[in-house]
Amino acid sequence: MDLQSTPQGVVAGSIPLFAGHPAHELLPISTVRRLVDSMWSQPDVVRLFNYGDEQGNRQLIEYLAARLQRSENLPVCRENLMIIGGSTWGVEMISHHLTGPGDTILVDAPSYRDALHIFRDAKLDVQPISIDAGGVNVAEMERRLRDLASVQRPPKFYYVVPNFQNPTGITLKRERRQAIVDLSKEYGFDIVEDDVYRDIRFVDDLPPSFYALSGGEKVLRLGTFSKTLAPGLRIGWLIGPAETVKRFVSSGMLRMGGGANPFTAAIVADFCSSGRWEGHVAWLRNQYKLRRDCALAALEAAMPSSTRWTRPEGGYFIWLRLPENVTVDELERGAKAENVYFASGKGFFVDPEDGAHHVRLSFSYVPLEDLQSGIAILGRLIKQLEGR
Amino acid sequence: MDLQSTPQGVVAGSIPLFAGHPAHELLPISTVRRLVDSMWSQPDVVRLFNYGDEQGNRQLIEYLAARLQRSENLPVCRENLMIIGGSTWGVEMISHHLTGPGDTILVDAPSYRDALHIFRDAKLDVQPISIDAGGVNVAEMERRLRDLASVQRPPKFYYVVPNFQNPTGITLKRERRQAIVDLSKEYGFDIVEDDVYRDIRFVDDLPPSFYALSGGEKVLRLGTFSKTLAPGLRIGWLIGPAETVKRFVSSGMLRMGGGANPFTAAIVADFCSSGRWEGHVAWLRNQYKLRRDCALAALEAAMPSSTRWTRPEGGYFIWLRLPENVTVDELERGAKAENVYFASGKGFFVDPEDGAHHVRLSFSYVPLEDLQSGIAILGRLIKQLEGR
Repeated sequence: MDLQSTPQGVVAGSIPLFAGHPAHELLPISTVRRLVDSMWSQPDVVRLFNYGDEQGNRQLIEYLAARLQRSENLPVCRENLMIIGGSTWGVEMISHHLTGPGDTILVDAPSYRDALHIFRDAKLDVQPISIDAGGVNVAEMERRLRDLASVQRPPKFYYVVPNFQNPTGITLKRERRQAIVDLSKEYGFDIVEDDVYRDIRFVDDLPPSFYALSGGEKVLRLGTFSKTLAPGLRIGWLIGPAETVKRFVSSGMLRMGGGANPFTAAIVADFCSSGRWEGHVAWLRNQYKLRRDCALAALEAAMPSSTRWTRPEGGYFIWLRLPENVTVDELERGAKAENVYFASGKGFFVDPEDGAHHVRLSFSYVPLEDLQSGIAILGRLIKQLEGR
Repeated sequence: MDLQSTPQGVVAGSIPLFAGHPAHELLPISTVRRLVDSMWSQPDVVRLFNYGDEQGNRQLIEYLAARLQRSENLPVCRENLMIIGGSTWGVEMISHHLTGPGDTILVDAPSYRDALHIFRDAKLDVQPISIDAGGVNVAEMERRLRDLASVQRPPKFYYVVPNFQNPTGITLKRERRQAIVDLSKEYGFDIVEDDVYRDIRFVDDLPPSFYALSGGEKVLRLGTFSKTLAPGLRIGWLIGPAETVKRFVSSGMLRMGGGANPFTAAIVADFCSSGRWEGHVAWLRNQYKLRRDCALAALEAAMPSSTRWTRPEGGYFIWLRLPENVTVDELERGAKAENVYFASGKGFFVDPEDGAHHVRLSFSYVPLEDLQSGIAILGRLIKQLEGR
């Protein structure tokens, strides 16, 4: 089994419930093949091969502006958009251009592990705010903002995955979003809205985005094709105030290398402009919903009553709270012995001990039967550990 | 004329002598097409579509390690190599991970404009050292190192394009490289060797790289497929000490997004592993040499004797020194009126005024007849300005 065709660190024959990857069978390989086949005869095929516009593929920018206007009635023009190499690029770029070492930022607790890693790399002072089933605790955020203001350390931004959060699957409630927009204006911080799971929703409606609620002010919103098309293409987008987009677009990195990968951006642009994206995503939502349902049913069947979990309305992840006397380290050791792997809750907190009783399960990647048997194994192990 | 199929800011019908892009007809489009056609039936085609190894495409790493061992007898193992999204990624990553705001670095004067831009974005204290026909002035570097040591501001690294430098086309002499390696050990700074033009050489031999001279210690060397295959694929590599490579590979950015673009890295890996790269590069060298020869002949025919220029033995660029009484701003205005565009020398210096009489001409991009007529126009303008 080639490591490159599987997530990092997957042991052959194992059940990788940690993998926040799309399942292989959900990747639109044959459609991409047909699109690429037809690209060779395009008169401007050379654009796939040379340096591209720093702002990114123009066709894709036009498509995204139209889609955001149509689907969310957002006031997004070309000047508010740029194409990036996956939402990763956005988080990295924002960290380096809008902050300096020692600057304070706010995050959810728990929050997306790899974003925390980027913030640590940028030497930021990362302040966690607890979350509950409705998302971040706004009263706690307000207290923290007051405290930080009193010591002249106002945060530069609040980083959040607002929909079907990684790792919990929780969606931030509308009224809390509005309250945070108000706080951002009062305390002068930006909101970095990493909205990578928006399109993988199992419900019809989502609360309006921060970008929508704020009218586009002081919000940077990230999107990606990694979840709806393929991570390997490394294409996403950023929307934000025109002056911030301009600042990123005129950075040294984009001047030097041009915009996000011209070759794969052209593939994504053709996928979208040909009208295929919408149908593909409708199909994907059903596929992931089936997986979510299967995981929830397996949890219901396998877990002791002392274990709690979220019921996400979209995205890739379910978050488990283990019984008080069971630690994630113990469960991890037991699971490893049975070839089942999950993401320990400890990675998603600034203080790892806060996640000592938590588990992130991904239902996006493994086949349905592995999802069921993996969860059954975890349930049995938790019962054993609990009953010691 | 679509902007995306041409370099940034090209005016239709103009002669863009500023463009450091490969000419369209030198891009291996039909070969890439054949390679991509054959990828769809590979059993592991899914690797093009999902997240890749943080270190990058494994097949490409193996190929590069073997090539570097074979062609330069370099002691490079897998642990010393990673795939990056063009050498741009390398410069950006090195700036952010090996320095902090206010740190000092050394660069050539003139130096590559967009790298200077990245260093400014990272808020570094960029100290220029003058160069002559043999590259950087080592005695001046040593004086600067002593001065910086005396104020406790030792540089973190020296950034250099050692072969066919951008913008001058100058190659750094072997004995100077050795002297700089010795200085790097004495004063404790790293050498960042941005060796992007190495493979576009018109001579058989190059001086050994810093990496070779130092035995791989304290040197980070960047390479790219942008010049030998296609910039649009956005694939390059970094070689360095194993612990530094490990640090980059385990950074938040690579954890979050996986390694450099899996889709285009697989294309490059197949291009190289199938043995096609060597033949393509041999052909390219002849093509670029022809362009260089044409540019030099045109300069000889068109320029007044008061104008000087370099005679690069590889790469993309020729560097002109204008007569004392002619400024690059005046020439730029005149050239623009005749639809000829070049890179002003001012962008390549920390203090732009140091480049007030210099011009960078690129011979890589425009057709031969435009190269000749563009240079003829510049020659006529310089004579007119000189004779005022």
